[in-house]
Amino acid sequence: MTIKTGPTMAEIAQEAGVAISTVSKVLNGHTDVAAKTRETIEKLMSERGYQRPRAAKNGRRRRNDLVDLVINELDSVWGLSILTGVEEVVEEAGLALVVSAVHNRQSLTRRWVESLLARGSEGAILVLSELAERQHDDLTRRNLPFVIVDAVNQPPPGTPAIGATNFAGGYSAAEHLAALGHRRIAAIGGHEQFQCTRARIAGYRAALESAGLPVDRRLIRYGNFHHDGGLIAAQSLLELPDPPTAIFAGSDQQATGVYEAVRRAGLTIPGDISVVGFDDLNFAQWTAPPLTTVRQPLHEMGVVAARTLLRIVNGERLESTRIELATDLVVRESTAPPRAH
Amino acid sequence: MTIKTGPTMAEIAQEAGVAISTVSKVLNGHTDVAAKTRETIEKLMSERGYQRPRAAKNGRRRRNDLVDLVINELDSVWGLSILTGVEEVVEEAGLALVVSAVHNRQSLTRRWVESLLARGSEGAILVLSELAERQHDDLTRRNLPFVIVDAVNQPPPGTPAIGATNFAGGYSAAEHLAALGHRRIAAIGGHEQFQCTRARIAGYRAALESAGLPVDRRLIRYGNFHHDGGLIAAQSLLELPDPPTAIFAGSDQQATGVYEAVRRAGLTIPGDISVVGFDDLNFAQWTAPPLTTVRQPLHEMGVVAARTLLRIVNGERLESTRIELATDLVVRESTAPPRAH
Repeated sequence: MTIKTGPTMAEIAQEAGVAISTVSKVLNGHTDVAAKTRETIEKLMSERGYQRPRAAKNGRRRRNDLVDLVINELDSVWGLSILTGVEEVVEEAGLALVVSAVHNRQSLTRRWVESLLARGSEGAILVLSELAERQHDDLTRRNLPFVIVDAVNQPPPGTPAIGATNFAGGYSAAEHLAALGHRRIAAIGGHEQFQCTRARIAGYRAALESAGLPVDRRLIRYGNFHHDGGLIAAQSLLELPDPPTAIFAGSDQQATGVYEAVRRAGLTIPGDISVVGFDDLNFAQWTAPPLTTVRQPLHEMGVVAARTLLRIVNGERLESTRIELATDLVVRESTAPPRAH
Repeated sequence: MTIKTGPTMAEIAQEAGVAISTVSKVLNGHTDVAAKTRETIEKLMSERGYQRPRAAKNGRRRRNDLVDLVINELDSVWGLSILTGVEEVVEEAGLALVVSAVHNRQSLTRRWVESLLARGSEGAILVLSELAERQHDDLTRRNLPFVIVDAVNQPPPGTPAIGATNFAGGYSAAEHLAALGHRRIAAIGGHEQFQCTRARIAGYRAALESAGLPVDRRLIRYGNFHHDGGLIAAQSLLELPDPPTAIFAGSDQQATGVYEAVRRAGLTIPGDISVVGFDDLNFAQWTAPPLTTVRQPLHEMGVVAARTLLRIVNGERLESTRIELATDLVVRESTAPPRAH
């Protein structure tokens, strides 16, 4: 996201054979431009590397000092923690934060990009977004700054993205369990395609290998990040002829599902089964027993995402478009050495 | 919040001895008006019942299709649940939701009202706000529609406010515990001055009286709504010479603190102590044992608050400015008959 020099609006207009006002309309998200004309203009702006001038932004374009946070679902403290970090920085900068939930991926449509432009948003922070190429192009083409937090897919090169050290987090969880003496350690991830899941499972495998433990594919499960995802996966793990003595869950919410599966099976934590979560949401310290988990600095990820976005908005050059914040293993009471056989 | 007919901007300007543009500046939150002039104009608008005309609103005033949600702290699923309800309605209405956390009550200053006006907000939803008279006047004077959710203080008459049936909730919790055979039932509230606390404790007392149980003031405690508020109050309750056999906590987060106090005392739930929470946040079903709690329809409160705000914005007449949504007792596994002595 470096500062480029590109053609002017007039040059784009001339090349497209339209009035400058038409180019301006497309740039500012007005809808009264024929689809074909819009496409031509956007294609040209994209090809020629058109850069929205700051002067025009401060002048004709309405500036409403708004920043957008787009989140997949507002249904967990997970997103809330990121939101608090973003809010803190945005408020300090004297801007206001518009929050919207995408609810499902389909909603991240062109209409959404248009509405951001129409209300004069300075830029957007996208949380756990499966940013399809089409949307990425839409945002880039309109030169609307954006930052991705915890990207689901590998974002295209040059896309500013903030995440956590998921590989190191998965490694530390499995390393901790192996050090306690566990030899059959299971892992539950989120959806198999999620970037964060891949990195965590890779870290888990690496730790097992370092500890000289075999990797048993039957002990690796995938599910949603919620309570039921953990419950279903753990139930199936506990029904194995040679069940694990430890389970590394993909999220704290999944870990609560693992707790329930263990309880339903008439087993205890950590007596029969050790459990490690991921995230360190506030309730992790209140579960019974308190949950050992990999702390993900969600609030700080929100802070860094917002600061990065504001730097882009201000035309600053980023040293790196990818930032991974460190995870930490927080050892509580849900992990212990395995029962001696 | 009925439709009033009042003086025009020109009449206010004439009476104040200023230009119409000065009145307009005050209305729209511009800061380049002398404090004394602003005061005079505001006082006149307030006294004469000046109503911001819809025409002017659609015309000269910038409309950005924004609605503001102002929340005390974004630190719990409690606020998140309200937020999801508000977001749903605001999004359906094609508006965008600006979210800000007040962090502390002092921030709800005039500058905040100015910034709402400056960005052309349609109105505001205030969650758990101690709306001081001064701020109430500021909002009313500028005719900026607002709705209060779960007001801390009794809002002034005519102020649209959405809440839950806290009295009935407190009643149902204590009634449930009394019906199980408990005779020493404690209650923990939030801050003693909070309206919701007062109503819940009143409901609890009424249920004890209906059940023919004495009200022991030593069994009524107050604390913050968080984990530590419940922990501190429960520890002190369990140290009483004649401790309670049941504790009705003021929130689910407080209940997790009660769980910890019971655990630290070497007691079990519900064997030694029955516990009832309040809210039914998502984690209530995952605590060990799952928490019996009074469900507060937080999402629905957000929905109703947003719908009410939009009705006011559209100039509709409200049948009632106060709406209380029903609470429900959700019985899980943290309550049981007391151990026979």
